[in-house]
Amino acid sequence: MSDYISVASEFVQYYYQTFDSDRRGLAPLYNIVEKLASLPFARVAHKITTIDAQPSISENAIVITVTGQLLVDDETKPQQYTQMFQLVQDNGFYIFNDMFRLNYA
Amino acid sequence: MSDYISVASEFVQYYYQTFDSDRRGLAPLYNIVEKLASLPFARVAHKITTIDAQPSISENAIVITVTGQLLVDDETKPQQYTQMFQLVQDNGFYIFNDMFRLNYA
Repeated sequence: MSDYISVASEFVQYYYQTFDSDRRGLAPLYNIVEKLASLPFARVAHKITTIDAQPSISENAIVITVTGQLLVDDETKPQQYTQMFQLVQDNGFYIFNDMFRLNYA
Repeated sequence: MSDYISVASEFVQYYYQTFDSDRRGLAPLYNIVEKLASLPFARVAHKITTIDAQPSISENAIVITVTGQLLVDDETKPQQYTQMFQLVQDNGFYIFNDMFRLNYA
């Protein structure tokens, strides 16, 4: 995947826009959409702070690391988070796996 | 790599212990040891908060995501950081690449 920095940036923007507006829209990327849809909040907003992309050992994949801020429902104090995606290109893109962590100070 | 969670935990503990005591000791894992050795601080201490490991698309590798706190030289207020490693098993282990970010609130 040659232009992996652009791919990472476009993917991350798309991912959080879709997550924050209608999580079911992530179905083409994921096989855990039922879990996403059942998460116990009604409104959620991700604000990206940093996006880093690295080539994967597999030529058709990249590893993306995101840090950002998360606001859920009526909260006013954002929580810091870290998320990692392994993104695979194979007739379009899909998420091989990902990892999400809230960062506690 | 079957027992990737144990591998991740042992690797991360070893990595930061070595980093904090003598960065040149990371030479067997890295090809950027000159850069590490030249980092502009004399004393550094990493405190791990979380370690997450995921299988890589490549069977002989794992992706490790760490969050933690960093204290440099005479600083007293730790900085939050996120680090990602792609760790490969091939006659021992080596770091394919990694990514380090300070998290700004």
